[in-house]
Amino acid sequence: MSNSYAPGARTTPTRSLARVGYDRDAVHRVLDEALVCHVGFVVDGDPVVLPQLHARSGDQLYLHGSTGARALRQARDGGLQVCVTATLLDGLVLARSAFHHSVNYRSVVAHGLAVAVDDDDEKAFALSVLVDAVVPGRSTASRAPSRKELAATTVLRLDLDEVSLKIRMGPPVDDLEDMDLPYWAGVLPLQTSTGVPEPDPAARVPVEVPEHVTQWTRSGS
Amino acid sequence: MSNSYAPGARTTPTRSLARVGYDRDAVHRVLDEALVCHVGFVVDGDPVVLPQLHARSGDQLYLHGSTGARALRQARDGGLQVCVTATLLDGLVLARSAFHHSVNYRSVVAHGLAVAVDDDDEKAFALSVLVDAVVPGRSTASRAPSRKELAATTVLRLDLDEVSLKIRMGPPVDDLEDMDLPYWAGVLPLQTSTGVPEPDPAARVPVEVPEHVTQWTRSGS
Repeated sequence: MSNSYAPGARTTPTRSLARVGYDRDAVHRVLDEALVCHVGFVVDGDPVVLPQLHARSGDQLYLHGSTGARALRQARDGGLQVCVTATLLDGLVLARSAFHHSVNYRSVVAHGLAVAVDDDDEKAFALSVLVDAVVPGRSTASRAPSRKELAATTVLRLDLDEVSLKIRMGPPVDDLEDMDLPYWAGVLPLQTSTGVPEPDPAARVPVEVPEHVTQWTRSGS
Repeated sequence: MSNSYAPGARTTPTRSLARVGYDRDAVHRVLDEALVCHVGFVVDGDPVVLPQLHARSGDQLYLHGSTGARALRQARDGGLQVCVTATLLDGLVLARSAFHHSVNYRSVVAHGLAVAVDDDDEKAFALSVLVDAVVPGRSTASRAPSRKELAATTVLRLDLDEVSLKIRMGPPVDDLEDMDLPYWAGVLPLQTSTGVPEPDPAARVPVEVPEHVTQWTRSGS
């Protein structure tokens, strides 16, 4: 298997200031770090974009979340054409000129046909990687789904094939004639951090907060 | 003006466990807190979803980012049908069962016709609210755009009209028969936090880090 996805007509940007790449590992890292993705599809000719949870296993991406009845029917009946985009915001880029303000980010865009997962075993596998994608180690620290729960769960699968990664990193780039302006310029790094875990107020059994909660982190770039 | 957006065919979900609303102020708060949105449109019948920066002014949403040449042409020539989705992730919801795992979030979905902003004055206004939407107070602490820079900037405008808000909040909801299972259950709150500001290494003039950088915050729900 190649270490890069092949650039396609839809993943070759027409113009861009940021760097575009197709490196498989870099794409995987962004998908694995992102907690949500945004899934776009077409209903009656119009675009619909909804947030969904996702989990990657090799070059397959599992998607979980509501799409509405019509899109789901399409996913079950031959497949639903989707564009899945996952974006990580790494920092705010403050330049001396308003024009050169920007953000540092890593964004993956994947196009393809998403199909509904029907097989119970694959659905159980997808649910466990979905739970672990959000909280590593959690799938074995919770009750596994029953057959009834699996039947009530919708999971779509997208093969990662037509994929691109766009990255902006580093300091602001100002025009030379602006470099002596009296404005601070630089990057304000951003990250996702956690608050104090909030135990379920309805809990009847005292359980210590586990390490997969206290140690949870999404390290940045 | 009504305090709620009117539910439309595309903003009334077919099924959902989370709460759906149309309250204008609540929608505005989510749009104002979100740093990026995901903009979906249709190219040759297929969906495209790209991250963009956005800023709200009243009931108008300005969008800034590359869409590709064809979508931009449409936005200039009558308008581009878009779905703009902005999602805030407030917490990870850990249940005793894998099935009831979830996330707490607030997500706005807006449908409509995005048009390219042509007027220089409106473009200058849009750029200043875009800069201030990311870093409040920044537009007056940087050099305003020149005519040439305005000409090189693409801004789309979407009237907020067909808009909905979806929210999941609160503790996990487990089945009664799972309440005595020996698994910790609760919510791990998430927030966006900042690292240490990184001054531009190319800076030639010493400038103290301003308060709009050191005090920058996006407070959550």
